[in-house]
Amino acid sequence: MDFELPPSLGIYGNETIAKDILSRIWGKRGVFTCTVANTRTSTIPGLSDAGDTPELTMFTGPADAELLINGRVSCMKGIPINPGGIPTPATLTMAALQLSGMPCFIVNGGCSIVPYVPYFDMGGECGDFITTGKAVKNVRTEFEKGVMLGRMLAKANDFVVISESCAGGTTTALAVMTAMGVVKENLVSSSSPNNPKELKTKVVNEALAAAGIKPGDMKDDPLGAIECVGDPMMPANIGIVCGAAPHVPVIVGGGTQMGAVIAGVMALHPELKGNFLQGTTRWLMDDANSSMRRIVDSITPDVPSVYVNVDYSGSPYEGLQAYEWGFIKEGVGCGGSSVGAIAMSAGRITAADLKDRVEEIYRGIMGEAVAP
Amino acid sequence: MDFELPPSLGIYGNETIAKDILSRIWGKRGVFTCTVANTRTSTIPGLSDAGDTPELTMFTGPADAELLINGRVSCMKGIPINPGGIPTPATLTMAALQLSGMPCFIVNGGCSIVPYVPYFDMGGECGDFITTGKAVKNVRTEFEKGVMLGRMLAKANDFVVISESCAGGTTTALAVMTAMGVVKENLVSSSSPNNPKELKTKVVNEALAAAGIKPGDMKDDPLGAIECVGDPMMPANIGIVCGAAPHVPVIVGGGTQMGAVIAGVMALHPELKGNFLQGTTRWLMDDANSSMRRIVDSITPDVPSVYVNVDYSGSPYEGLQAYEWGFIKEGVGCGGSSVGAIAMSAGRITAADLKDRVEEIYRGIMGEAVAP
Repeated sequence: MDFELPPSLGIYGNETIAKDILSRIWGKRGVFTCTVANTRTSTIPGLSDAGDTPELTMFTGPADAELLINGRVSCMKGIPINPGGIPTPATLTMAALQLSGMPCFIVNGGCSIVPYVPYFDMGGECGDFITTGKAVKNVRTEFEKGVMLGRMLAKANDFVVISESCAGGTTTALAVMTAMGVVKENLVSSSSPNNPKELKTKVVNEALAAAGIKPGDMKDDPLGAIECVGDPMMPANIGIVCGAAPHVPVIVGGGTQMGAVIAGVMALHPELKGNFLQGTTRWLMDDANSSMRRIVDSITPDVPSVYVNVDYSGSPYEGLQAYEWGFIKEGVGCGGSSVGAIAMSAGRITAADLKDRVEEIYRGIMGEAVAP
Repeated sequence: MDFELPPSLGIYGNETIAKDILSRIWGKRGVFTCTVANTRTSTIPGLSDAGDTPELTMFTGPADAELLINGRVSCMKGIPINPGGIPTPATLTMAALQLSGMPCFIVNGGCSIVPYVPYFDMGGECGDFITTGKAVKNVRTEFEKGVMLGRMLAKANDFVVISESCAGGTTTALAVMTAMGVVKENLVSSSSPNNPKELKTKVVNEALAAAGIKPGDMKDDPLGAIECVGDPMMPANIGIVCGAAPHVPVIVGGGTQMGAVIAGVMALHPELKGNFLQGTTRWLMDDANSSMRRIVDSITPDVPSVYVNVDYSGSPYEGLQAYEWGFIKEGVGCGGSSVGAIAMSAGRITAADLKDRVEEIYRGIMGEAVAP
């Protein structure tokens, strides 16, 4: 294998598979999708920081969708931020899409607030608290429509990037991965450096108890696990991978919450191994309070992580520097779209280019207020 | 202009514009969209033949969507047919998409029966009887989302084909074109050779009276006309043209029902003239019981018609021969997708190739029953 990885990218897991996939999409034409969804789980106080308040976490997915398509938000004032004003990772996704010219489609996994953009409807609904043990409706429909959409996208593109914006998604992912027996402890990330691990574990334990599931019970039934304790982003995205990956390489863009999607695909179609990888950020891979590396090891190193070495430490903006302090780290496919953009440009786009464009976008969105 | 028109295509209207657009999309990469919608108007007995019974006309759009995406219908038994068993023109659309490899997306303008495919939701609803004078809800939303979708599609493709499957659509088109003063008499087509012109004119007159509109009142307000007496296919498609045509050429696929869409675009954005044309069939252009030619003359010859010279007269199948007797003639973008496929292949695909593939598809769908 003579594929040379540019310094803007890093690999964890099976390097041979990662380089093989990258070499096949290098300089090729990709398409980016972001599946937005809600789970009421994100409104449990203290659980999710993907929004300024627990109530505002319900607006984060739809607002990110509007930002990606129109460059501005209609469903709420301002843009999605974490408490403290740290801007949504959609800013990095926008930079990757702008620099590469990669087309972008929104998939509505199930939102309570409808984004004001054209989106692929998958027949999903807003997810309920996972503590009900009956969190997601229409799982089979969403999965089957996802398979169709994956096939449609693979027909017209050389590779497909999927991603998510669903506040509360790491908790639902922990629940599904626990139900499937993929993880035995809380390895998932948080958009806060103070990962509320005890609260997440408590909510997951309550959810599994309510559903009458013991860890590992749903090993071979990811869609069943999602129906009980998942969120409506998952079946749509598992479907898209299952529909697209038999035809073209797929980048699963996202952090630990995508562990549930990767584990779901591997349970349903293990033969797709070798044609999809995770695309993420170095912030997420290096997080001290979660372990994507151990999640990859648990599922299989043969679905490797490719991460973008984007670095905001030299940025004049505190809102961006905060990414270096452990805030946000991933979301809205910021890592996957960056990996996709670098691949599509055959390495001409660099992590430094991405950072520069994010600063431009950040200035545009925040106006004079953030002039350095 | 040294563009040579292949014998598979014909032109009506401004030949210079038509050839200029064709030369710019020749051998280029297109995308096909079909906007499916319902208007209760199609259930007025005797009005629409786009379905075996008045009630079944409501299934025609959704079933066509399923046929295009999955090659089979889930929402009803069999495939959409006209009384007498003549198959949906989606068979020709499928042939064009298969031969060219053109990607296809479904747009839901507003259906009462939801197609079992992933589709772009535009915020539309099933249209009411136009005789209420308040036929379509959310017209502005659908239009604005259409503009966004048009922009999105133009970003990733060299040209865009739009189309429709909406039973009752010629009557609603007549109503909108009359309200806009584009036509002064009933020039619209029917999927039956016995075009129920008196009934359509009567329904349109009732609709305009109910809305308090005199012919020509809505000259500059196509969205207002649609809200009163149109159908939910129209604002989505007008929006897509307005969003895409500033960037890439657009083919408006369809027959006389697309007159309302073309007139709407010309009223809102006359500067788009020169970057879009109608794509249709010779069956429609040569119909003795309607006059697409006079509709083109009335709106402007500068939005020319390019038609495919497909000929089913030599087909061993009566269901296809019926197209030569004045049945069906257009729908589901069969003409626009054919023109798009011929352009995308730089003329390598011919009208004869399309007919051969339609016969294969017809055999596949109907099975042994139609063995010649």
